[in-house]
Amino acid sequence: MASGYRKIKGGVVAPRGYKAYAVGAGVKTPGADRLDMALIASDVDCVGAGTFTTNRVKAAPVRVSQAHLRDGDLRAILVNSGNANACTGVKGVEDARLCAKVVGDLLGLKQSQVGVCSTGVIGLPLPMVRIEPKLHELVGGLVRGSGTSVAQAIMTSDTRHKEIAVSLEVGGERVRIGACAKGAGMINPYMATMLCFVTTDARLSHGLLKELVSEAVGLSFNRITIDGDMSTNDSVIMLANGASGARGIKRGSADFRIFQEALNYVMLEMAKSLVCDGERVTKFVTVNVKGAKSERDAKKAAEAVANSSLVKCSWNGNDPNWGRIIHAIGYSGAVVKEEGVDIFIGGLAACLGGLEADVSMDALRERVACDAFAIDINLNLGVGEYTVYSSDLSPEYVDFNRSEYAYWKQAKKDGLTKSV
Amino acid sequence: MASGYRKIKGGVVAPRGYKAYAVGAGVKTPGADRLDMALIASDVDCVGAGTFTTNRVKAAPVRVSQAHLRDGDLRAILVNSGNANACTGVKGVEDARLCAKVVGDLLGLKQSQVGVCSTGVIGLPLPMVRIEPKLHELVGGLVRGSGTSVAQAIMTSDTRHKEIAVSLEVGGERVRIGACAKGAGMINPYMATMLCFVTTDARLSHGLLKELVSEAVGLSFNRITIDGDMSTNDSVIMLANGASGARGIKRGSADFRIFQEALNYVMLEMAKSLVCDGERVTKFVTVNVKGAKSERDAKKAAEAVANSSLVKCSWNGNDPNWGRIIHAIGYSGAVVKEEGVDIFIGGLAACLGGLEADVSMDALRERVACDAFAIDINLNLGVGEYTVYSSDLSPEYVDFNRSEYAYWKQAKKDGLTKSV
Repeated sequence: MASGYRKIKGGVVAPRGYKAYAVGAGVKTPGADRLDMALIASDVDCVGAGTFTTNRVKAAPVRVSQAHLRDGDLRAILVNSGNANACTGVKGVEDARLCAKVVGDLLGLKQSQVGVCSTGVIGLPLPMVRIEPKLHELVGGLVRGSGTSVAQAIMTSDTRHKEIAVSLEVGGERVRIGACAKGAGMINPYMATMLCFVTTDARLSHGLLKELVSEAVGLSFNRITIDGDMSTNDSVIMLANGASGARGIKRGSADFRIFQEALNYVMLEMAKSLVCDGERVTKFVTVNVKGAKSERDAKKAAEAVANSSLVKCSWNGNDPNWGRIIHAIGYSGAVVKEEGVDIFIGGLAACLGGLEADVSMDALRERVACDAFAIDINLNLGVGEYTVYSSDLSPEYVDFNRSEYAYWKQAKKDGLTKSV
Repeated sequence: MASGYRKIKGGVVAPRGYKAYAVGAGVKTPGADRLDMALIASDVDCVGAGTFTTNRVKAAPVRVSQAHLRDGDLRAILVNSGNANACTGVKGVEDARLCAKVVGDLLGLKQSQVGVCSTGVIGLPLPMVRIEPKLHELVGGLVRGSGTSVAQAIMTSDTRHKEIAVSLEVGGERVRIGACAKGAGMINPYMATMLCFVTTDARLSHGLLKELVSEAVGLSFNRITIDGDMSTNDSVIMLANGASGARGIKRGSADFRIFQEALNYVMLEMAKSLVCDGERVTKFVTVNVKGAKSERDAKKAAEAVANSSLVKCSWNGNDPNWGRIIHAIGYSGAVVKEEGVDIFIGGLAACLGGLEADVSMDALRERVACDAFAIDINLNLGVGEYTVYSSDLSPEYVDFNRSEYAYWKQAKKDGLTKSV
């Protein structure tokens, strides 16, 4: 962070002109008051942009939010955890739209100015009887400064809440970016999701915001993997309301570059924190590939290594197993010349020119035993580079994900059935 | 098996005109006499065909055998377990060629008439000091009827040996097909491999044999998955020596069809037995997809379900989790209309039209608790079909694969180093 932005306290309401509130509606556990619903709203008109799961099975709120974001005119985001509202058919879409409408009416906004997100169990309808009465409370409670409660309300199997904020200067005025996020990929036994909400008080056009979000997501959330599964609900939504009073940011300007840099930092920090807090994860592993024929090839190789069950098992066991790494590179689909492959583990050469390097196994083992280390791979064929952030795979992960049957049975008992 | 073939006793030397022998050379464990080298040879000239791993990192014996099989003139197969001879550079290829040359000289064959296969740890050279002296013993011991010892010698983490033989009639004469196989995919902590050797005493042209093998492999070994990893050493090699005396099989004839059917059966039985004996596997799961826009789409959907860590975890936990199944279908890349997806588990509807079916969870759970069951998926979009054979993923699998470090250290101590 030698650049023009610096970390500040707070999260999604650190930028000016945003309010937030969170409540417990018993979506996660009926009767319990654990926070599971939250609302973020801008005091003034703003522009919104988002990126969503590419899974062909999309949850109802994803479909509704995509439609609401089409013209970039968004001012509020409603989110619940505990139920994904996915595979819920026509009723799911109606429920999501109804939530947006009620919140919109209470805030004096159009229904289409309210985005909706859900995370939780798939295939059960939202418990609207418990959700609807809470919408009034959410809107009524909107106060400045409760970003942390939003970060807490969206947690599912996360062990800690995740938020961040930075400030930077645009034309002599301070602008801020704030964010909160939860659980990466399908890491949750209740079929969870990656969610990230970002706010800024900078002034941006809708087109520019889309570009900025697209680049930042491409460098962060699109480069993390825990179990290789892609959720039905993944969503990143960003709002920009201009409330800082700073001049508008123009494409190609110095303002633009520094803002992009700051936004990339915010999203990458959130993305990394999701991997570190992945289910039963003990290691954070950065997989860097360079020297590939193309960036596309580098991506294939990095993703194959980062997603290989056997490679991830070996990291869990502190095993500096370069043989498993090169075998994953080999089946990745990237152009590979075996005799050109170099693999470094924690900075130490493990494999040079496709052959075992002259290195102490114990020294390599020490590197893999660290909480965080890098695997650097050079294919020595071209200039393609790519980085993926991954984790180990533990017996505890499998055990944790063996069954959500008990949860499902309980949900049925609690009335979270089709008839609700 | 209502067709024209029937199962008979024996394995890879059940067909006429083949001999085999196996010895313990201390490749797996120096000093131990566990079988780890085997030789299969035809008494008379024959044709050979093979299919090999598509991993770009190919073990030395794979490269050597591919070259030897180019003209189809193969008469013997030498195999060792305990060391994959992969990532061993120029020396690895020289070692593999030397083995083929020594065996060829002893049998009065050209070096190129001997195929070579290895399975075991990656990155360490073959212990030639222990292997070379055993080649004489292998050739000297060739006797009819030791197919089982070959099946045993190629085992690594397999818990039981795998062999099969069938007989069928061609023009009133009996012909036989025999086979043995070992460990599927990268299922072994020592970086193992899928190997399958098939023999027949039918008379076939090289071109026809290639066709037959290609179809049978496509319907069997290419449809199994345990951990989604692809080895550097996977090999299927088949020999046909005509020693039955039956008339030659012609393309498009009734003989051809019945022989293909019998060969498909042999390879599918071997492939299924690999899944059932996968590392720490407790369930055999057949994933059938139909109604896809194309066979390619059906394959994508079936493979996504069969390889999803979360789906496989749920099977291990007896959890009839259709939500995880539909999410994997959704990200498979196949064209999918959520509202058209039907999922049956063990014959019971779990999801109809993308929504939860009206079914007892306990009844579904009973089906998933079986040792073997089927997932039938209908995308209701077209006529594309595909089947993949899969297994569950257990905490014990991860634990089993956490580290081969101890093995590696021992291998180093035993002198299996670059300097050998």
